[in-house]
Amino acid sequence: MQTDIEIARAAKLRPIAHVADALGIPEDAVEPYGRYKAKIALPWLRAQEEKGKRGKLILVTAINPTPAGEGKTTTSVGLADALNRTGRKTVLCLREPSLGPCFGMKGGAAGGGFAQVAPMEDINLHFTGDFHAITSAHNLLAAMIDNHIHWGNALGIDVRRVMWRRVLDMNDRALRDVVQSIGGTANGFPRESGFDITVASEVMAILCLSEDLADMEARLGRIVVAYTRDRKPITARDLKADGAMAVLLAQAIQPNLVQTLEGNPAFVHGGPFANIAHGCNSVIATRAALSLGDYVVTEAGFGADLGAEKFFDIKCRQAGLSPEAVVIVATVRALKMNGGVAKADLGKEDVEAVRRGSVNLIRHIENVRQFGVPAVVAINHFVTDSDAELQVLREVAEAHGSQAILCRHWAEGGAGAVELAEAVAAIADMGAAQFAPIYDDDLSLFDKINTIATRIYRAEEAVADPSVRAQLDRWEAAGYGHLPVCLAKTQYSFSTDPALLGAPTGHVVPVREVRLAAGAGFVVAICGEIMTMPGLPKVPAAESIRIDADGVIEGLF
Amino acid sequence: MQTDIEIARAAKLRPIAHVADALGIPEDAVEPYGRYKAKIALPWLRAQEEKGKRGKLILVTAINPTPAGEGKTTTSVGLADALNRTGRKTVLCLREPSLGPCFGMKGGAAGGGFAQVAPMEDINLHFTGDFHAITSAHNLLAAMIDNHIHWGNALGIDVRRVMWRRVLDMNDRALRDVVQSIGGTANGFPRESGFDITVASEVMAILCLSEDLADMEARLGRIVVAYTRDRKPITARDLKADGAMAVLLAQAIQPNLVQTLEGNPAFVHGGPFANIAHGCNSVIATRAALSLGDYVVTEAGFGADLGAEKFFDIKCRQAGLSPEAVVIVATVRALKMNGGVAKADLGKEDVEAVRRGSVNLIRHIENVRQFGVPAVVAINHFVTDSDAELQVLREVAEAHGSQAILCRHWAEGGAGAVELAEAVAAIADMGAAQFAPIYDDDLSLFDKINTIATRIYRAEEAVADPSVRAQLDRWEAAGYGHLPVCLAKTQYSFSTDPALLGAPTGHVVPVREVRLAAGAGFVVAICGEIMTMPGLPKVPAAESIRIDADGVIEGLF
Repeated sequence: MQTDIEIARAAKLRPIAHVADALGIPEDAVEPYGRYKAKIALPWLRAQEEKGKRGKLILVTAINPTPAGEGKTTTSVGLADALNRTGRKTVLCLREPSLGPCFGMKGGAAGGGFAQVAPMEDINLHFTGDFHAITSAHNLLAAMIDNHIHWGNALGIDVRRVMWRRVLDMNDRALRDVVQSIGGTANGFPRESGFDITVASEVMAILCLSEDLADMEARLGRIVVAYTRDRKPITARDLKADGAMAVLLAQAIQPNLVQTLEGNPAFVHGGPFANIAHGCNSVIATRAALSLGDYVVTEAGFGADLGAEKFFDIKCRQAGLSPEAVVIVATVRALKMNGGVAKADLGKEDVEAVRRGSVNLIRHIENVRQFGVPAVVAINHFVTDSDAELQVLREVAEAHGSQAILCRHWAEGGAGAVELAEAVAAIADMGAAQFAPIYDDDLSLFDKINTIATRIYRAEEAVADPSVRAQLDRWEAAGYGHLPVCLAKTQYSFSTDPALLGAPTGHVVPVREVRLAAGAGFVVAICGEIMTMPGLPKVPAAESIRIDADGVIEGLF
Repeated sequence: MQTDIEIARAAKLRPIAHVADALGIPEDAVEPYGRYKAKIALPWLRAQEEKGKRGKLILVTAINPTPAGEGKTTTSVGLADALNRTGRKTVLCLREPSLGPCFGMKGGAAGGGFAQVAPMEDINLHFTGDFHAITSAHNLLAAMIDNHIHWGNALGIDVRRVMWRRVLDMNDRALRDVVQSIGGTANGFPRESGFDITVASEVMAILCLSEDLADMEARLGRIVVAYTRDRKPITARDLKADGAMAVLLAQAIQPNLVQTLEGNPAFVHGGPFANIAHGCNSVIATRAALSLGDYVVTEAGFGADLGAEKFFDIKCRQAGLSPEAVVIVATVRALKMNGGVAKADLGKEDVEAVRRGSVNLIRHIENVRQFGVPAVVAINHFVTDSDAELQVLREVAEAHGSQAILCRHWAEGGAGAVELAEAVAAIADMGAAQFAPIYDDDLSLFDKINTIATRIYRAEEAVADPSVRAQLDRWEAAGYGHLPVCLAKTQYSFSTDPALLGAPTGHVVPVREVRLAAGAGFVVAICGEIMTMPGLPKVPAAESIRIDADGVIEGLF
């Protein structure tokens, strides 16, 4: 059997100008980055959008992730290829993978099997430099904060209340917490700080939620980086950092066009964390795709509890998007794990475990319906799936009002997802969706948190210390009360305990800490332990990554 | 009068494929990065080199820099344009500018007036991502060191003797010294460390000195990152980091092709510091240029004492290059400052000050001659220069065996440097150069340092504490004694005191610290205070940098 990388290398890619041309993008709006990647000029895209054409938006989400793997990106690629294969002009929108984790445990994030986007080495490494630009813009702001303090601190920043950390696109636990500015007078005022991974940067979330260059600069200016002693917020604009940050991001904000292995267009642009940020590709890419294609397939991070909720309540709310259909990806293997089977035993048929574990799927189907969007279940096929197991899954889904369709895109490419494509297109064409976010802008910040905790996570309630409640009150008083909330919790469970699989009930959601992302436009509520700077494992993948004399990369995937 | 940026924007650039085509580079060896930048495939370049054609190499260097500005890059561009204009197929080789300093005090580094390389915004910002790739590779190694220690430290690294710091391409004094890995067990073993700016990374020096991908990976593997308790060196290869680092650098090692405002080809590739590293563009770019052009114009960092010496003794030695001619750039203004005139008074004619200050120029002429290469002086014209001042400069140069030629490339482009081009080409065509490095490989490390200190800096001697001498002895015993040395001292003076202008004598060169760059292949001797992480000024340039709605960048230059 061919590996992902062998399949990718065997594929004959189209010159990116041809892919663009098939979408009607003229040559002078295409800025090539090598032969198979391009950035598309924003002014041209904006002109397209103003023509008013709008494709139908389809979200791919999933059950809670397990070590068995679900294949959300793979399914997104397969579905987009199948829609194109069945004569529907379809554009795929995915997130850019982060470079850092490639050197740890994780493989690439460009799909798998015959359902991949290409060129996968580029996409998984530096790609078109977007994440590096975000790192630079983020760290320029950090340098300007400490520089301001060093040269007299005219704004009166409380050095104990600098909230803006630094970022690197690297798994480096040694940088999680540091004491900086030591070494004497010339180096500034010593204080504690630290580094997050670049995908956790608010700059990343801003780039992904901005309408255009001007909106991005305005959002960058609104970032709250610190507070004075009397808790007045200090913004990036106060430091006059917003303009230079926008300059650093001027290329990065233009969406990247690549292709699937079947030569269909894919925008791969932006990649915020799906816990402390909203976990979706850029609004600019999604809108561009909607103006160019009749159907747009996109994905959200992690499971539907974290990813789809944020896609709906943050991205769609801010950008005025209205999805027509949702695909929930599930696998027999992952549902068996939700039903209590250990990873080592997944190869054995266990119909009852599938039935037990399907409570996880059922709850996600119900949740998606709360947003007014019809859902289809995509069963991502594994060779070990038995007919009886698959039949249980179909029955469970149908009993809860959703079709469940077996997909073989991993092995067969778009041809393996034609049935899914027909079902999804039929739903989208029907126009039955009546999308609405799950809470209103004018609810209090804590009530928004509590709404998600009780209606989506199905907890008894959200709880928070008085100090956390007081912080939320202060932000409301300062005019941030209208913002949506972004809950950060484990992706493995509806609860905040990663070990509680299936469909737990009776839990509470403890809000440990809240953070203001005034530029991105949401308030982050951290529930449980959330790691914003990963570490490398004992034997990092980096140890076996090499490039041979012909430039062929080994060990990356 | 037009500003640099106005001139640059008014220029009509050629598509980069046309620039490549004029050099005989076929389309399939050209990887475009946008419309006006490209990387050139290494295998094709290697095949060209094997054909044996060799252009003549011309080095542009300068007197010691002063706040008056000398215009070394501008002269390099003007000379290359003039050589092309006079029918000589010439390729320019420059260093890539560093992004970080653009946001501090410094403007861009792509030449000026009508002697610029373009597109200047791109070149000065992210360009083709080379520096970001170097940052990533450097920091991956850093993460792998701390990760190795965290997971059991099987190699027995002495955590007090980890020499490998981290890098960012940002002026950020707060990161010069940090305590890292604090925050508890999960974050590793706390220790002191810090960040340098990316151009100071040994990875940068390695990229610039490597022959090809395989040589680069071998050099990366040789980096000494730490020592054990009994002072055994630990290398990047011991940590199995070399392969992944090479993968991160696989694109970056390919030279970048851009053009001058007159449409002539320029490789802009690599940019190591000229104090703690060798300060020259990549060997790969220089060799590529030599195989494609009849003449190659390149530059070295800072003044000839630091820059040309390293170009000769490190780059030419390692790469087997043999320069045919040297251009020493001087200005009337800068020589007046060397003659004791304050910056505010530079507008007033002062013939005697020029005469006094020309001792600086004379010494650089003599020094270059020690390497066996003929030198021409380029007088970079300023509007305030008087005829009498210029005449003194010509006489002084001629009295010391060099022509001094007035150049107006800043105002006139290549047309303003035709006389210089004719003179330089005549010398290069004569083949009179008999280049040799100033010391042999088999001299002891300290004797090499002393040779440079006495023969180039004209000090009485180099001095060092016994601990420094002992360190050099240990490296010689460990097999590093054959390496050349790289002296890091202030660029403003022949001495280690930046205030001693002109041609000081009687000084000593104190070696404060020595560092091993085993991958790059030199031993760094730090003489005086050397800053490897700049800070931002009180009012950083970043505060006035913006991008307008049409994507036009303001304030960067």
